[in-house]
Amino acid sequence: MAAAGKVIKCKAAVAWAAKQPFSIEDIEVAPPKAHEVRVKMVATGICRSDDHVLNGSMSFPNFPVILGHEGAGIVESIGPGVKNIKPGDKVITLFNPQCRECKNCLDPKSNVCIKSDIGKLTGLMLDNTSRFTCKGKQIHHFVHTSTFTEYTVLDEMAVAKIHNDAPLDKVCLIACGFSTGYGSALNTAKVEPGSTCAVFGLGGVGLSVIIGCKVAGAAKIIGVDTNGDKFAKAKEVGATECINPNDYKEPIHKVLEKMTDGGLDYSFECIGNTRVMASALLSTKFACGTSVIVGVAPSTAELNLDPMVILTGRTLKGSLFGGWKSKDCVPKLVADFMENKFELDGLISHKLPLQKINEGFDLLHKGTSLRTVLYF
Amino acid sequence: MAAAGKVIKCKAAVAWAAKQPFSIEDIEVAPPKAHEVRVKMVATGICRSDDHVLNGSMSFPNFPVILGHEGAGIVESIGPGVKNIKPGDKVITLFNPQCRECKNCLDPKSNVCIKSDIGKLTGLMLDNTSRFTCKGKQIHHFVHTSTFTEYTVLDEMAVAKIHNDAPLDKVCLIACGFSTGYGSALNTAKVEPGSTCAVFGLGGVGLSVIIGCKVAGAAKIIGVDTNGDKFAKAKEVGATECINPNDYKEPIHKVLEKMTDGGLDYSFECIGNTRVMASALLSTKFACGTSVIVGVAPSTAELNLDPMVILTGRTLKGSLFGGWKSKDCVPKLVADFMENKFELDGLISHKLPLQKINEGFDLLHKGTSLRTVLYF
Repeated sequence: MAAAGKVIKCKAAVAWAAKQPFSIEDIEVAPPKAHEVRVKMVATGICRSDDHVLNGSMSFPNFPVILGHEGAGIVESIGPGVKNIKPGDKVITLFNPQCRECKNCLDPKSNVCIKSDIGKLTGLMLDNTSRFTCKGKQIHHFVHTSTFTEYTVLDEMAVAKIHNDAPLDKVCLIACGFSTGYGSALNTAKVEPGSTCAVFGLGGVGLSVIIGCKVAGAAKIIGVDTNGDKFAKAKEVGATECINPNDYKEPIHKVLEKMTDGGLDYSFECIGNTRVMASALLSTKFACGTSVIVGVAPSTAELNLDPMVILTGRTLKGSLFGGWKSKDCVPKLVADFMENKFELDGLISHKLPLQKINEGFDLLHKGTSLRTVLYF
Repeated sequence: MAAAGKVIKCKAAVAWAAKQPFSIEDIEVAPPKAHEVRVKMVATGICRSDDHVLNGSMSFPNFPVILGHEGAGIVESIGPGVKNIKPGDKVITLFNPQCRECKNCLDPKSNVCIKSDIGKLTGLMLDNTSRFTCKGKQIHHFVHTSTFTEYTVLDEMAVAKIHNDAPLDKVCLIACGFSTGYGSALNTAKVEPGSTCAVFGLGGVGLSVIIGCKVAGAAKIIGVDTNGDKFAKAKEVGATECINPNDYKEPIHKVLEKMTDGGLDYSFECIGNTRVMASALLSTKFACGTSVIVGVAPSTAELNLDPMVILTGRTLKGSLFGGWKSKDCVPKLVADFMENKFELDGLISHKLPLQKINEGFDLLHKGTSLRTVLYF
C-alpha cells in the first residue's frame, strides 16, 4: 500500500471512447485533496448504467473515463478535513452522494444531493479536477465514483463507512443494484402488508425489488420476464409466481388484471423499456394502483401514455437509488445484511477479476446472468 | 309536482347526436324503481366533460342522451328500499357514485365505485334500462346522473342528501367542478403547509385547486394561464401570483423553476392538454415534486414523457372527483361551505335558464367564462 500523499500507479479498466471495449491500463491515481478519500477497491458490480454509457445509449460527454459505480473497498488514505473515515476502514461508494448541506439533503422528501454528478456528468471531482491520468492524459471520473480501478479517489460525500466485518464482495451490491430495487419497494412504492405486486424484469434489480416486497409483507409477488430460466431464482428470493408474456396471446396487463381480480396494488419496471413501463402502469388497479419506474431507459426513449390511465387514480413514481439517503442509509443496509434481514448471494451469478471486465459486460449483454462482481 | 309512481312529462335538453346543439324537448320521466330516486332539478353546472361528449372528443356510444352531471335538486319521489332519502330532501347528484359494497368502495385508497358508468358509458341505470323517453324513443342517461332535465331518476348510490338550507344554485358545483379541484389539492396531492404550488388553467376547476392549496396552507400558489383576464379572479380566491406563458421566451417550466429556486412541490394541470401536463410535471422539483392531472384530455390524446423525469424522483398522479368518496364526502363538503370554509360565488360567472343551454356551451367554447349554472 502506498503512503498517503504519493501518487499510486495501478491497473484500471479505461473506457477511451463509446462503443469500444475497455482497455486494462497502467494509470496514476493522485493523492486525495481536502475532504477526499483514496480507496483500494476490493469488489465492484457491473451495472447496466455503466453499459448504457459505454454503448452510447446514455450520452456521456467526457471520455476517456473510468466507469463503475457499485464498489466496495478499504480506505488507503484521506485528505485534510475528512471526518469519521480513516485508513483501513471498509467503505462503499455512493454514486448518489449525500453532502448533508444542500437543500435536497436537508429535505426529508428528497434523496438526490444537488452536488451529485448524475445529471451533469462533468466526470470530475467536486473541485472540477480529476485524480486519474494515463499515458499523460487526464481520465475522467464517473458520477463521483469510478470503481473499475484498483484505486480510486472519492469526495467525502460519496463514501459511506460500513461495518468492518462486512464481506465486500457481496455488500458492494448495496452501492447500487440491491438498494435501488429494495428501496423502490420499501421507500418509493411503500408496499403494504397483504398487497399484490408484480416485478417486470428479473435481473439483479428486479430480484431486489422482490426481496423488498417480501420484507414489506406483500401477499402476492408476481415475477414477469420473457426468459423463463429466471423464474427459479425469482421464486427463491420471494416471488409467489412467475409468468412469461410470450406464453399469452393477451397483453400482459390484461393477464395480470385477471390474476389479481382487477389489477395490482404495485408494479415495478426494472428493465428500462418504455413499452414495458406503460404496460406495468396499466397492470395496476385503475382506481388506486401505483407503478414505479426502476429501470433506466436510453436517453432518447419516450414514454407514451393515455392520460386517462393516470386521471382515474393511478400513480406513476420513480426514485434514484431506491429513495435512500445514501450516506445515512448504506451503513444501516449493510448492518441489516449482517443481521440476515436479506440475502445477497442469490443476486450474484459471476465473479471475475478486473482483467476480465469485457467478459463481464458480454455476460450482461446476453441477458441471462444476474450481477457479475469484479474482484481485484 | 307529480305524484310518486306516475310518469312525469317535463322539459329536457336532449343531445340527439354528437356535434349538434341540444334540443329542448318534452320528455317522459318514468317513476323510480327499487333503490332509485326521482329528483326535480333546481340547478346544474355546465362542465367541460359534457362538452367533450357533445363535440365528439370523448367517444360516447349511446346517443340520444341527456347529458349533465353537476346537479342539485329536490327529491320528488323514491322507489322501494331507498334508505335515508325522502321526498322534499335536498340532494346532489353523484356522477362518481358510491355503492358502499363493492371492492373499491370498501378500499380506503379508492374512490371509484365499480358500479360507476364512467368507464363503461352504457348510458343506463344500474338495472340496464332507461327512465327517459322522447317522441317514443328511449333516451340514454349519462354517468348515472343526467341533469339537463327538469326531472331525472338516479340510482340511490348516485344521490347524496345534503343540508336542507344549502343554496342549490351554488352547491351544485360540489357535484363536480369544485370538489374535483379542491380534492386534487387536499386528497390527491396532499399539499402541505409552506409548500409551493402552480395551477395550470384558471377555469372553475383550476380556481377550486387554488382554494384547496390555500386551505392546505401552501406558501406560494402560482396561477398559470394564457388569458391574463383570469388573473384577478385567481388572486381573489388565493393565488399569490399569476403568470402568462406568452410573456416569456423560455418554456414555462424553466420560468417556474427559477421562480421557486429549483421547482415546485406540487403542480396541477386543469385544462386537459397533454403538452401542458408534461410541462406541469417538468415544473416540479426533479428529486421529489408531484404533479396532478386534473383536466380531462380528448380520447385520442397521448402524453409523451421522458422517463428520466419520473425516474429521478417525480410523481405523476390523478384522481376522479378529487379523490372524494362521493356519498360520504359531498354532504360534508356542503356543510363546510355552509360554515364558510370556502366560497363558491367566485367560481360562477353566468346563470342561464335551461332553455338557453346552447348559449351556456358557447360561453364555455369562448374560454373566457368560469362556471355557467343552469336553472329550471
